[in-house]
Amino acid sequence: MAANSSATHGRQIIKHLGQSKGRALTLREAAIIGVGRAPVKSGSGKSVTELFMEAAIEAINDAGVSRLDGIYVGNMMSGFLQHQEHLGSMMATALGREGVPAYKVEGACASGGVAVNAGVKAVLSGLEEIVLVGGVEKMSGYSTPEVTKGLMMAEDRPRVGATGVSFVGLNAMIARAYMHKYQVPHEAIAGFPVLCHKNALDNPKAQFHKNITVDDVLKSPLVADPLRLFDCSGIGDGAAAVILAPLDTARKFTDTPVRVAASTVATDALSLYQRPDVTVFEASRTASQRAYTAAHLKPADISVLEVHDAFSVLGIMALEDLGFARKGEGSMLVKDGACERDGRLPTNTFGGLKARGHPVGASGVYQVAELALQLSNKADKCQVPNPSAGLSQSVGGIGGTIAVHILERME
Amino acid sequence: MAANSSATHGRQIIKHLGQSKGRALTLREAAIIGVGRAPVKSGSGKSVTELFMEAAIEAINDAGVSRLDGIYVGNMMSGFLQHQEHLGSMMATALGREGVPAYKVEGACASGGVAVNAGVKAVLSGLEEIVLVGGVEKMSGYSTPEVTKGLMMAEDRPRVGATGVSFVGLNAMIARAYMHKYQVPHEAIAGFPVLCHKNALDNPKAQFHKNITVDDVLKSPLVADPLRLFDCSGIGDGAAAVILAPLDTARKFTDTPVRVAASTVATDALSLYQRPDVTVFEASRTASQRAYTAAHLKPADISVLEVHDAFSVLGIMALEDLGFARKGEGSMLVKDGACERDGRLPTNTFGGLKARGHPVGASGVYQVAELALQLSNKADKCQVPNPSAGLSQSVGGIGGTIAVHILERME
Repeated sequence: MAANSSATHGRQIIKHLGQSKGRALTLREAAIIGVGRAPVKSGSGKSVTELFMEAAIEAINDAGVSRLDGIYVGNMMSGFLQHQEHLGSMMATALGREGVPAYKVEGACASGGVAVNAGVKAVLSGLEEIVLVGGVEKMSGYSTPEVTKGLMMAEDRPRVGATGVSFVGLNAMIARAYMHKYQVPHEAIAGFPVLCHKNALDNPKAQFHKNITVDDVLKSPLVADPLRLFDCSGIGDGAAAVILAPLDTARKFTDTPVRVAASTVATDALSLYQRPDVTVFEASRTASQRAYTAAHLKPADISVLEVHDAFSVLGIMALEDLGFARKGEGSMLVKDGACERDGRLPTNTFGGLKARGHPVGASGVYQVAELALQLSNKADKCQVPNPSAGLSQSVGGIGGTIAVHILERME
Repeated sequence: MAANSSATHGRQIIKHLGQSKGRALTLREAAIIGVGRAPVKSGSGKSVTELFMEAAIEAINDAGVSRLDGIYVGNMMSGFLQHQEHLGSMMATALGREGVPAYKVEGACASGGVAVNAGVKAVLSGLEEIVLVGGVEKMSGYSTPEVTKGLMMAEDRPRVGATGVSFVGLNAMIARAYMHKYQVPHEAIAGFPVLCHKNALDNPKAQFHKNITVDDVLKSPLVADPLRLFDCSGIGDGAAAVILAPLDTARKFTDTPVRVAASTVATDALSLYQRPDVTVFEASRTASQRAYTAAHLKPADISVLEVHDAFSVLGIMALEDLGFARKGEGSMLVKDGACERDGRLPTNTFGGLKARGHPVGASGVYQVAELALQLSNKADKCQVPNPSAGLSQSVGGIGGTIAVHILERME
C-alpha cells in the first residue's frame, strides 16, 4: 500500500502548491505544440491514408518532433464507406511509426472531438508524452443514399433509421421546433452560414470560397423543410491533426504552445424522440459547464469560439447552450456582429463546418487546430485580435455526444 | 508558469516518496473492481445493445458502484455489420447514464484490449474515477461472405483485400511459414485448441463445451490449408465488461481489487507482406516488453496467461513472442502440460478465443475480466491455484495492433 499512501501525500502536496486548476489529481497539464490541416474538398481523389498523412506530417513538422508516443485517429465512417477499420495501425504504418501505440476513436460526428479527448487523457495519464491526434473522413465519391445511410449510423438505426427519416430530416425537425418555440424567423438563423462563408474566404483550406447573403440561403434549394442547401454543411474529404505534449515540456518544441485548459465529453440520450426538449442540446450544457469549471473560466472569458454548425440552427443553438446567449437569442449575437472576427465573440473564424467543411470525423480536430492557430497568433488572414482563450464544441449525432475543449494562450 | 513549476516540484516529491513503479509521472494507479461477461453464442438473437447491457450491468453490480465517470466501448464491426456507430452515446443511454462521457475505441480484433487501455488512461489522467470498459461484438446472423469481408477490414483493404485473400487465408500463410521454418508438425500446434476446449468445459459462459483431441483437429474440415476447422475460433456474439477505479479507492468497493500493473499497446506494419518475418508478431514483443518494464515483472513472474488464439498457431506464437518459450518451442509448453490449469503457466483458463469464443471487439475485455476473476479467486471451476500476476495479449488484425495487460493480486 506504499503507492496508495504516497499518492495521498502527493495529492495533498499538489493541492498545497496550488497546482489544482481543475486537475488536482494529475501532475500534468497538456499543451498543443503543432497543428496540420489538409484542405477540405469534395472529390479530393485522396484515400483516407493520404488525407491523414497530409495533416499528420504538417503537424509533425510544425511541432518539430522526432518522436511520437501515441497516435489517436478520429474517424466515423471508414468501416461503412471504405470497408476499412484498424486505422490506428494503418496510419502508424503509413507514417513509418510502427510500434507506436495507435487506435481509432469514434463518437459519430464528434469523433474528432473525442479523439482529442483521448489524446489529452493519454498525456495526462503520464503514459505518453508526445501524442498525435488526427481526425480524418473521406465522404465524397459515394452515392447520396450511401452517405445518407452512413450519417444515420449516428442515430438509433433499428428504431429511428427504420422509420425512413434522414439525418438532415432530424435536424430539420430541430430547426422547425426551434423557430416555432422561440419565434425566430429563418432569416435570423440564416445569418450563421453567411458569417461562416465570409470567414472562409480568408481560409485557403476551406471547402467553399463563396460569399453568400441571407437571401441566398433563403432561396437555395430545399433539402428538408425548413432547411435549405445553404443551411447545411457539405460533403467533403479532409483531415486535421494536432500534436500534444506535457505543458511543462512544450516550450522545448515551440515558442507558442497553447495550453489545454479543459477537455470534456458529455453524452445525452441518443435519439431525438427521447429528449424532453429538442431545441436544446443538454450535452452541450453539461460538457461546457464541466469545461468552464475545469478551466476556471466563464463564457465571458472566451475570446474565440468554434462551434459545430453542421446545420445553421445548430450554430445558433450552440451560442445559447454554451452560455453566450439566452435560449432563443443566439441569432441576435450574429445579427449584432458580435460573432465577426472583430466582434466581441469571434465565431467559426476559419469558416466553421458550413464553409471550412465538415468531413465528420475530422471536424472536431479542425476546430481545435484552428483555435490553436488563433491563440498562437498564426491564423494569418483569419486572425482575431489578441485572443486569450478559445472554446470548441464538437457534436456527435443529434447531440448524443458533445466534446468541448478550452484552450488558452500561454503568457 | 505557476502550474508548470509546481508540476516539476510535484514530480520530484513523488519520486522522492518512491511511488515510481513504472508510473513516475502519475499520482494514480488503476484497479479492476468489478467484471461482467455475457455468454458467447452463435445465434444469440441479441442486439449489440442487449449484449453490452448484459455484461455492463453484471460488472456494475459486481463492483457495487452507483456512479460512472466514463464509458469506453470496444467494438470493431458495428459500422459494417449493423450499420450503427455512436455506440458510446447508445450504450450510455441504454444504461440510463446519459451525461457520462462515452465513446467507442477500435483496434480491429484488439478493440477490446485497446478499450481497456483507453479506460486505464482515463483513470490515470485524473479526469475520471469510476470507469466502465465494455467490449461487444455481434457477428452471427450475417452471411459468411459478409463476416469474411468484415474481418478483412483489419487488413489493408485496397492493397491486400483486393487480391481476394481472406483473413483466415492470411493466418494460414503464417501457419505454413511457422511449421516450415521451425519444423513443427501440425499435431504439435493442434495441442493448443485441445487445451482451450478442455478448459472451456468448466466455463458456463463459453461458446463451446466439447472435448476434442489432436486427432479431431487434424481430421476436421479444411478451412484454409493448413488450418482446419478446429484450428480456428468460431463466429459468435458476446460482450464483456470491467469496472476500473483508482487503486487507492478500490477497497471501498471490493475486498479483492486487482491492480492494473501495466497497460500497453504496440503497433506493427499493418500488412503481412510488409513484415520481414511472418512467424513472429513484433508488436507482441514490443507491447509485452513495455508491460514487463512498467510492472517491474518478468515472464517467470506471470502465473496465469490469456492469449489471443484466434487461430491455433497464434496461440503457440504468443507463448514465444511474450517471452515464455524460444521461437519454435511454444508447442512444447503445451505438450509438457505447463499450460494446463495446474501447470506452471496456466493459459487460456476459461477456454481462450478458440473455445470461450471470439466476438472480436469483446475478446480483449473477456481476457482482462477472466484474469481479474483468477486473481481475486473468483474463477470457480476455472480457478488456478493462487495466481499472483496475470498477463493478457489481445491481437488486432495480423498483429498490426497488440494490447497487453498485466494484472496483479493485491496483498
